[in-house]
Amino acid sequence: MGTIPESMRERVEETRRIVSDLHAELPRWGLVVWTAGNVSQRVRGEAADGSDDLLVIKPSGVTYDELTPDAMVVCDLDGALVDGTRSPSSDTAAHAYVYRHMPEVGGVVHTHSTYATAWAARREPIPCVLTMMADEFGGPVPIGPFALIGDDSIGRGIVETLRTSRSPAVLMANHGPFTIGKDARSAVKAAVMVEEVARTIHVAQQLGQPHPIDAADIDSLYDRYQNVYGQ
Amino acid sequence: MGTIPESMRERVEETRRIVSDLHAELPRWGLVVWTAGNVSQRVRGEAADGSDDLLVIKPSGVTYDELTPDAMVVCDLDGALVDGTRSPSSDTAAHAYVYRHMPEVGGVVHTHSTYATAWAARREPIPCVLTMMADEFGGPVPIGPFALIGDDSIGRGIVETLRTSRSPAVLMANHGPFTIGKDARSAVKAAVMVEEVARTIHVAQQLGQPHPIDAADIDSLYDRYQNVYGQ
Amino acid sequence: MGTIPESMRERVEETRRIVSDLHAELPRWGLVVWTAGNVSQRVRGEAADGSDDLLVIKPSGVTYDELTPDAMVVCDLDGALVDGTRSPSSDTAAHAYVYRHMPEVGGVVHTHSTYATAWAARREPIPCVLTMMADEFGGPVPIGPFALIGDDSIGRGIVETLRTSRSPAVLMANHGPFTIGKDARSAVKAAVMVEEVARTIHVAQQLGQPHPIDAADIDSLYDRYQNVYGQ
Amino acid sequence: MGTIPESMRERVEETRRIVSDLHAELPRWGLVVWTAGNVSQRVRGEAADGSDDLLVIKPSGVTYDELTPDAMVVCDLDGALVDGTRSPSSDTAAHAYVYRHMPEVGGVVHTHSTYATAWAARREPIPCVLTMMADEFGGPVPIGPFALIGDDSIGRGIVETLRTSRSPAVLMANHGPFTIGKDARSAVKAAVMVEEVARTIHVAQQLGQPHPIDAADIDSLYDRYQNVYGQ
Repeated sequence: MGTIPESMRERVEETRRIVSDLHAELPRWGLVVWTAGNVSQRVRGEAADGSDDLLVIKPSGVTYDELTPDAMVVCDLDGALVDGTRSPSSDTAAHAYVYRHMPEVGGVVHTHSTYATAWAARREPIPCVLTMMADEFGGPVPIGPFALIGDDSIGRGIVETLRTSRSPAVLMANHGPFTIGKDARSAVKAAVMVEEVARTIHVAQQLGQPHPIDAADIDSLYDRYQNVYGQ
Repeated sequence: MGTIPESMRERVEETRRIVSDLHAELPRWGLVVWTAGNVSQRVRGEAADGSDDLLVIKPSGVTYDELTPDAMVVCDLDGALVDGTRSPSSDTAAHAYVYRHMPEVGGVVHTHSTYATAWAARREPIPCVLTMMADEFGGPVPIGPFALIGDDSIGRGIVETLRTSRSPAVLMANHGPFTIGKDARSAVKAAVMVEEVARTIHVAQQLGQPHPIDAADIDSLYDRYQNVYGQ
Repeated sequence: MGTIPESMRERVEETRRIVSDLHAELPRWGLVVWTAGNVSQRVRGEAADGSDDLLVIKPSGVTYDELTPDAMVVCDLDGALVDGTRSPSSDTAAHAYVYRHMPEVGGVVHTHSTYATAWAARREPIPCVLTMMADEFGGPVPIGPFALIGDDSIGRGIVETLRTSRSPAVLMANHGPFTIGKDARSAVKAAVMVEEVARTIHVAQQLGQPHPIDAADIDSLYDRYQNVYGQ
Repeated sequence: MGTIPESMRERVEETRRIVSDLHAELPRWGLVVWTAGNVSQRVRGEAADGSDDLLVIKPSGVTYDELTPDAMVVCDLDGALVDGTRSPSSDTAAHAYVYRHMPEVGGVVHTHSTYATAWAARREPIPCVLTMMADEFGGPVPIGPFALIGDDSIGRGIVETLRTSRSPAVLMANHGPFTIGKDARSAVKAAVMVEEVARTIHVAQQLGQPHPIDAADIDSLYDRYQNVYGQ
């Protein structure tokens, strides 16, 4: 086990609290059951290339009732445990791969939320037919490759798919959604919104075909929302 | 920033409390996720033409846990901020347009509730095939035009559609429902009921065709409910 | 307004508490939104023919947060108010008709629960294809006639349909379920169970046809459950 | 009524608490309504052949609000009451049969959860098209025979079906899921997960066909998850 550099300790403790609190949003919005799902956030280190950054993530197989800041675990960006009394989530390698290869990303979330995972099972991208989806995703939510756990193939699939898209969410084939953001809160928001649009457009398609939205209108909605919205 | 006239201050404070409390009904009935959705209520001024009326609405991009009376913002009917420490909801211009052009309206609600938004994505009015829908809506729930945010086109689409209907709800194309009422509470009720009938009739149509209700029976149900029901 | 006979006062107070508490089960199990739905229970009087029986029911248009024993209203079996400060539910005439014509019934419940109401909109009985449905309903859940509110036609439709069925639930056409029981608790249980079987069999039919259960097996399950089950 | 051997008393009391607490997970994850569903756990006795093992289970027809450790009942593996003031669940014979014939099983759960029961109504196994399903179930969830309550036929159907499968869940025809585990907690997890995969794959199939997962990949996922996952 490594050690947390003195200069990062305070921020690591603050990040444990943030990541612990954000896990409560996953069952609150119906995205997970039992111990499924995980949220992580990057803690930036001293090195300009990010090589000493850390990540804080949920431990493996622990229920949502047991999640406290102290239970969160700290890993380096190779996914190795740096601090914590439990094993990190089995999805840690995928989170770490994303942080290593996408320096602008500060938060990652993974769930098996029902409707997003159903699109993933059919390997069918979610079409952009709602104004709220144009706002948040700027186009369709793409499908990533089928990848087994155990090496870098999930992380690589996430990164390669998201690099060619404006969407902060990717649906990994037969698996479920991974989302990214500038911090964990943004990635959790994307996880909530990808399930929302997955469900609404599923329901719309059950009784016919949604009207498409013109590409120029999608661009206009996306640009305004990303640049103007919020406080 | 303007100022709230002395004669309206007490009613503005009371309205902040009402609007803040009513926002809690949106997640309670499953109509919104994250920070989506907004409720507003008109505060009538001195001018007979309503030109100095104000509206109280939710700030932009703020979570449902943070909503308190103090967090609510006050705008004039051009949507300009009059009082409050945060930016008003990005839908404020649409609310303000409705208040300017429909003097009988005292409350407006907007959500992206799942089933109503699914009908909106197909641009398909909800047919009136339930007695509770005849009671509340007096006929089908109509579809409004596709309109981008940023000018008066959403507000104009709402008003033009609702003027030709008995329904207090309009489904804006590829966007979602807007509802109106004599006050914010009535508009929230209409938002709850439009999702209820959107969901129930969706479910009915999944396995066949609902029986229609005769127009005369719809009229009879609507008249009784609007004139007799309640305390 | 009548008066409650001395001999019934204590039982009326107890029944107000029971009926008030049971209303909380309706939103708990997702059967109602806003102020919809109502539960009543009979209070037996002195007359052998039940002519001085009373019923306790929810007031009209009051939210679930405001429901207390004191808010409940007392009516005679013609639906006239005997005690209470609010108007009785607009469905009181239907409840009263059931009590007048089905002396064995001690509780009545009405909701617009989503899946049961969807079958009602298609006027399609729910087929008995689950063992739990054979247990509780002893066969299909029947459809009642289309009836407008305002006279005895809803009550008459409920009674005529239930007299020819073992089911404690009837789906009134384009309207929703009414359920009966030996007391209000049993009628609430039937309201919960009719939505449960309506939903499960709807879901089953979405992807194919459920296997039927033999009539003799339905009889066997129903007989055991009605005679052996419980404490 | 038998008596609990001195050597088992402490473990029986601890098991009452565990089984009582686990019942709360069933409504929490939306698996049951009203009094439906039951969880049991084995308490091992002195005999090497398990002949004096006991089981702790929920009483019959009691609501989830009334479930306390004291309310739980203790039975022998013939399903006869050994300790408790209420009748055991009417499914006790099925639980007891499983414990008698599957010595490695320490917990059993039965629900009528909506989506799993819908597959059971069509007598259609749930295909293994999600990585989380490969992890937990190692293949499809099988269908058990149609069996009436009242003798050993439900228990026998569960055991015969599960012996030929890696799945800890069986969908009894026209009835619902039974799940097993090394203890009650594992069986509850399987009950939560079988509903999760039943729902997600149902939703996926509503709009097309899920992509299959290769048998070798299913094996690989199952082996890793069963041997590596968790703390």
